[in-house]
Amino acid sequence: MSHPGGEFAFIDWLRRKTRPDPRVIVGPGDDAAVIRVGRSADCLITTDMLMDGTCFRLAEAGPRMVGRKAMAVNLSDIAAMAGQPVAAVVSVALPQQGGRLLAEELYQGMRELADAFDTALVGGDTNSWSGPLVIAVAIVGETTARGPVRRTGAVVGDRLLVTGPLGGSILGKHLTFVPRVRQALQLHAVADLHAMIDISDGLAADVNHLCLESKCGARLYADAIPVSVDATRMNDGRSPLEHALGDGEDFELIAAVAPADADRLVRDQPIEGIQLVCIGECVADGLWLQDGNQIKHLEPLGYKHRLD
Amino acid sequence: MSHPGGEFAFIDWLRRKTRPDPRVIVGPGDDAAVIRVGRSADCLITTDMLMDGTCFRLAEAGPRMVGRKAMAVNLSDIAAMAGQPVAAVVSVALPQQGGRLLAEELYQGMRELADAFDTALVGGDTNSWSGPLVIAVAIVGETTARGPVRRTGAVVGDRLLVTGPLGGSILGKHLTFVPRVRQALQLHAVADLHAMIDISDGLAADVNHLCLESKCGARLYADAIPVSVDATRMNDGRSPLEHALGDGEDFELIAAVAPADADRLVRDQPIEGIQLVCIGECVADGLWLQDGNQIKHLEPLGYKHRLD
Repeated sequence: MSHPGGEFAFIDWLRRKTRPDPRVIVGPGDDAAVIRVGRSADCLITTDMLMDGTCFRLAEAGPRMVGRKAMAVNLSDIAAMAGQPVAAVVSVALPQQGGRLLAEELYQGMRELADAFDTALVGGDTNSWSGPLVIAVAIVGETTARGPVRRTGAVVGDRLLVTGPLGGSILGKHLTFVPRVRQALQLHAVADLHAMIDISDGLAADVNHLCLESKCGARLYADAIPVSVDATRMNDGRSPLEHALGDGEDFELIAAVAPADADRLVRDQPIEGIQLVCIGECVADGLWLQDGNQIKHLEPLGYKHRLD
Repeated sequence: MSHPGGEFAFIDWLRRKTRPDPRVIVGPGDDAAVIRVGRSADCLITTDMLMDGTCFRLAEAGPRMVGRKAMAVNLSDIAAMAGQPVAAVVSVALPQQGGRLLAEELYQGMRELADAFDTALVGGDTNSWSGPLVIAVAIVGETTARGPVRRTGAVVGDRLLVTGPLGGSILGKHLTFVPRVRQALQLHAVADLHAMIDISDGLAADVNHLCLESKCGARLYADAIPVSVDATRMNDGRSPLEHALGDGEDFELIAAVAPADADRLVRDQPIEGIQLVCIGECVADGLWLQDGNQIKHLEPLGYKHRLD
């Protein structure tokens, strides 16, 4: 579950309304919830909804890529908890014209990614209506023996690692990204991950989310933040670094680990297919950007859903 | 998950595309899927989406009743499997104006029903957009020691029991119905339920769904079908029986049981708060209505989502 910008006050409201429940290990406010089902199993659950014209443009992206993205953003939430996805259900509201063919293409896109991550597509609810395409996926996953990684465990001194270059995802990566499910499981197996989050709203915004949950602050190193090629191609007056800090939907992971673990992981690069980069550290409070000798206050800007 | 009318060809298509998976006990095509999570737990999962103007009218029903219904239709799917709901996640697309207040009212409506059925509301994805309200709920449940009740187990000679009067739900019951979660668990504890389904599309349509899955037919007794008061108040030229047979969204359950169990259940009425009625029996094939001495072919009509 992503919880962008203006939604946060609402999540707080929802949390205050939530009664303690022994079956709920992790409730609202993390990338996925953790619940106890049956006698012993800890079960991850998350949902994300995408709407045509807001999260994608159907006419440009095509239904297959839209289906793919709907599955990918949910898989990324399971990755952010260092979980293994198990099964997905899908609800869609299809435009009345061409609904059947559209549905098949959507499901093909979802299936390709679900199959790649060993996630069974076990059912759904297919509707048609007069509005634009809306698609909501919910994924159930399982935690490993090491348990879920939450947003809450970062402590002052922890280093922040990121799994890939950032910025400019609107040029394509927001549709084509590969969720970091395998990398998260591998990281979880070789290091003690104190906290983790996926970058859906933007680096600064999501570091801020992690810090709020962990009750700490963070200082990011401007020179270290990996800037994607797409961030340099935006040509809209904002610098590549600004794009890396503020653009959403990179779906890389940020992990908080102890300094010695960070040193080891960055030196050994034990995770196949990605380059781990140390981009900052946890401090007592505030969100800061260290640029050479200057330390500036960093606004936790990112993509916001407005709730007026 | 409801699978109304024209959606069925699509479900068939989806099933053909679905690979066998040892973790999937029940895949697409039932009221809920059953998956294995962790080492042992069998986990029910279902999703249903409601759209303003199609499944409700926000201006008439108000957000609280809409939230309630979104939770209730999903709980009804868990009931149809004789499962115990555990936790729910919610995705919403809110109209941009008034989104925050609307969201709170929606969640209050969901919470009231979730609390009543001991279902934790563990998270969600809250979005705003320029379109009408869309709300998708996914519920995870657990099976009892007796396992899930599927649509597939009815055999020729089984009696069909229904949990309440039918027809005319559009006059209010489609918003106010109480999902038959407790009754299903009680029934499951006192009788061997061969198959079960909830009436979302309409009695004839849903009996037909159950029969298709069980590879049998059914004969319904016209005189026995309990007709609701609302079905008699429709005044649209169709008879109350036609409404009871064809109207959707009653969310009563149909259960197939052996004749001796049906006799006992109807005689003893062991389930609090409902009157079990035997409305028909399973036959070799076809869907039939016995009206006095006449036996007529029955069209499996019901509410259909069109997929053009």
